Amino acid sequence: MEEKVISKAVISRLPRYYRYLGELLESGVERISSNELSTRMKVTASQIRQDLNNFGGFGQQGYGYNVKYLYTEIGKILGIDRQHNLIIIGSGNLGQAIANYANFEKRGFLIKGMFDINPRLIGLVVRGIEIRSVDDLEQFIVDNQVEIAALTIPKSKATEIADRLVKAGIRAIWNFAHVDLNVPDNVVVENVHLSESLMRLSYRMCSLDKGKDLDEAD
Amino acid sequence: MEEKVISKAVISRLPRYYRYLGELLESGVERISSNELSTRMKVTASQIRQDLNNFGGFGQQGYGYNVKYLYTEIGKILGIDRQHNLIIIGSGNLGQAIANYANFEKRGFLIKGMFDINPRLIGLVVRGIEIRSVDDLEQFIVDNQVEIAALTIPKSKATEIADRLVKAGIRAIWNFAHVDLNVPDNVVVENVHLSESLMRLSYRMCSLDKGKDLDEAD
Repeated sequence: MEEKVISKAVISRLPRYYRYLGELLESGVERISSNELSTRMKVTASQIRQDLNNFGGFGQQGYGYNVKYLYTEIGKILGIDRQHNLIIIGSGNLGQAIANYANFEKRGFLIKGMFDINPRLIGLVVRGIEIRSVDDLEQFIVDNQVEIAALTIPKSKATEIADRLVKAGIRAIWNFAHVDLNVPDNVVVENVHLSESLMRLSYRMCSLDKGKDLDEAD
Repeated sequence: MEEKVISKAVISRLPRYYRYLGELLESGVERISSNELSTRMKVTASQIRQDLNNFGGFGQQGYGYNVKYLYTEIGKILGIDRQHNLIIIGSGNLGQAIANYANFEKRGFLIKGMFDINPRLIGLVVRGIEIRSVDDLEQFIVDNQVEIAALTIPKSKATEIADRLVKAGIRAIWNFAHVDLNVPDNVVVENVHLSESLMRLSYRMCSLDKGKDLDEAD
């Protein structure tokens, strides 16, 4: 495949394409036109063609897209055509919610372990995954070739744990703590800040009140 | 305040400003320059000035920003200067994680009730909030002037529940189910699609492998 610089905006839309294509595959659809995909996804057909053209010639004029091929290629681009080992640090409700979400495995994200500092949680098993003491973190990462750590702990502990993860060679942190982490350039941080999401919701609700949905302004 | 069309990009950054300003307030800082804020937030000072200028003259040359004033004004813009009543539909781990997050209340989001279809959960109390049967949903929304519903249920049920919420007069859905909801224009949907977030993380990790962090391409 030709290498092009792909904009952040396009990349941010790929997981959604991947989800729709996965659902089409599951319901046995083999080919889909940009128009049909447009109707389902509520994105213009021209946006779909522009986005997918970034990856070079998936579409065949008059035949539509080959769903399986497109799904596979987008999977490769997203790096989910291989297995990634993941741990969850913080085994409270949020950590357990993630551990219980079997769909991550279908995408190649394998949850190898869970960690906590609470002695009442250590030793429990969630969907076959044992909760361990955070003391064992570094050794576990090395032994299990862990690439990704989900941080579902309070922000007061997040910075310290992130430093330990980086030293232990983690490659990516999926950060649910409400704090921005400082990590070297070779470590990825993907934030899920729930309170910020709720504020965006609030903003959009209030904009509607004022008779202007600013969501469209770009 | 003058009314301007504010870009989606600026809006998406406001919750982060709000978080930093809140932390500054808590640590007793009264004034901050765009340069200091720039160092803390790792955003250029010129971006900060541009963003905040959208809201008209918070900054005073040579004096920096009044933290309290800026915090309050951004809070008004985000619509979190008033109380919003919220319910959680789906009282599993994710629903309980949200119920346990006291910070939402500090932002004016009051969790009035939780719902589930599982008889073993109905009647339980999470941080003072009773879990009710989903049968009581519509009446509860009216009786408690509920504006926002967090949907933490499997995608198979999400569409049906969303329809009921809309009919019952809900104004916004905070959607954690991995499905896109169809709602009228006067209802806001804010999605938190965790598997999409994890795919973005994977993409960025793989881009680093290829020696090009595409995260910067915009």
